[in-house]
Amino acid sequence: MVDVPALVEQAREGRPRAVARLISLVEGASPQLREVMAALAPLTGGAYVVGLTGSPGVGKSTSTSALVSAYRRQGRRVGVLAVDPSSPFSGGALLGDRVRMSEHASDPGVYIRSMATRGHLGGLAWAAPQAIRVLDAAGCDVILVETVGVGQSEVEIASQADTSVVLLAPGMGDGIQAAKAGILEIGDVYVVNKADRDGADATARELNHMLGLGEARTPGDWRPPIVKTVAARNEGTDEFVAALEKHHAWMAERDVLAERRLRRAAHEIETIAVTALRERIGDLRGDRRLGALAERVVGGTLDPYAAADELVAGLTTG
Amino acid sequence: MVDVPALVEQAREGRPRAVARLISLVEGASPQLREVMAALAPLTGGAYVVGLTGSPGVGKSTSTSALVSAYRRQGRRVGVLAVDPSSPFSGGALLGDRVRMSEHASDPGVYIRSMATRGHLGGLAWAAPQAIRVLDAAGCDVILVETVGVGQSEVEIASQADTSVVLLAPGMGDGIQAAKAGILEIGDVYVVNKADRDGADATARELNHMLGLGEARTPGDWRPPIVKTVAARNEGTDEFVAALEKHHAWMAERDVLAERRLRRAAHEIETIAVTALRERIGDLRGDRRLGALAERVVGGTLDPYAAADELVAGLTTG
Repeated sequence: MVDVPALVEQAREGRPRAVARLISLVEGASPQLREVMAALAPLTGGAYVVGLTGSPGVGKSTSTSALVSAYRRQGRRVGVLAVDPSSPFSGGALLGDRVRMSEHASDPGVYIRSMATRGHLGGLAWAAPQAIRVLDAAGCDVILVETVGVGQSEVEIASQADTSVVLLAPGMGDGIQAAKAGILEIGDVYVVNKADRDGADATARELNHMLGLGEARTPGDWRPPIVKTVAARNEGTDEFVAALEKHHAWMAERDVLAERRLRRAAHEIETIAVTALRERIGDLRGDRRLGALAERVVGGTLDPYAAADELVAGLTTG
Repeated sequence: MVDVPALVEQAREGRPRAVARLISLVEGASPQLREVMAALAPLTGGAYVVGLTGSPGVGKSTSTSALVSAYRRQGRRVGVLAVDPSSPFSGGALLGDRVRMSEHASDPGVYIRSMATRGHLGGLAWAAPQAIRVLDAAGCDVILVETVGVGQSEVEIASQADTSVVLLAPGMGDGIQAAKAGILEIGDVYVVNKADRDGADATARELNHMLGLGEARTPGDWRPPIVKTVAARNEGTDEFVAALEKHHAWMAERDVLAERRLRRAAHEIETIAVTALRERIGDLRGDRRLGALAERVVGGTLDPYAAADELVAGLTTG
């Protein structure tokens, strides 16, 4: 058994191996998961969580790396969670193939973790918030959650952030693709990266137009800004950080931040509860009760709905 | 409110509109769903359910139609459930675009129903078994469940049949594709349709080879036969029906049929129970309890797992 309090203490001191160990414990649904979660709870809530999403090739890793550098210059501790739902690879390895990222590898103020699809339980949508909790409790001031694609699970993971950033790059129809992916509804800040390329202004205009559609905002509403960057040359990073800080301040002033976090916590509790109930039902698979109910359904003396009612009633009374 | 007993009586008499009405009631999860299911229960168990699956273009509809004709010649009542998970279209309409199918449109001994993806609840994997129950209770001797694709939901739907038929057509790599789709594990009977085309023998050989791999069968085990047909010219239909009858008899002799139906019923009960619990949790979304738990999680005095435990405990005590 792992000495959880000691591990949490080491993580608080910024020891990367302790952080890695804690994430592995919560990610793998170890028997000590609950002990870890209970130990982390009083230490969470301090981090500002930023989600970054966008199609492959828009420069998410480079942009994330630029943000890391900017926050490090401010002396803030940064956690990076790179989530790739399409990759069969998982683990705490450093993203060696991400050149821009590796410059932070030796910085003790930065913790980088990659996460890929897991078969168990609810997958990433379930594991990502737990990893965020570890980074939060470990004392990260800012947590950047980078998701690779633009599918449903990415949108769900991004929704766990305080601020959601949608990245685009110049190119015909990219905005339309983003709209199709439902991504236009989740952005608090939009970034057109590779803004030195042809079509950057057109992409920004197209995006601005689409964001304005259906607009019926009341004064004080947040109007998502569109920031142009060239992350590879570190251009526009200050504006990007400023846009994030502005959104953070706007949320904090209006209790939006507290509301978002409440909604997120409620969703997280729901997901865990559904998973637990599903497992409990799964445990009944070899159980006499389910077999007996199935026999009555096959025999025609009970319909499957009435059988399900009996099953649920049996579950809930133990 | 619908007069359910009268409707069931009319369906038993073979009135297609009554059958259609009942399927709509169970498919749409109407308030009378439970009443319908309870009324159907004692009338079910008489039908032999055959699932037909395979890639688009292998001739599933034509093969299904040929089977319908063959069973009708035997004087048996036939139900057809054509399931298309990829189609946004749903309803009880006759499949007008399926020329071979429409020849049965005026035959009162045949009931044809198409079903497409539904957003509600568990989707088709949930709705298909209920529709099968209606056709079963309505007195169909044979129910043919035709699924359009080869994805996971098709495999799941096919697994609800007594006998699963996998259809292939001659063509490079079709067998390999089927293997990839996990389809080779679910077939009780294999059909190589369009057997007058080049490559039919090669496809059958390839299939025979793949089915033999990993073979360590005990005597008496079922060895899936491979039947060659040209459904459009009604060639091989008798052999196809004979293979089905043989499998049916083999299952009945060894209690395999009873076991399969028990396992299916257990799975069905589980699915309904999980859906019900999920809905119950969803009903709590506006509830004070979930909100209060979320507040404690955000405040750090409770972790999300402990909160989920409290939520489940609250659920189960009412």
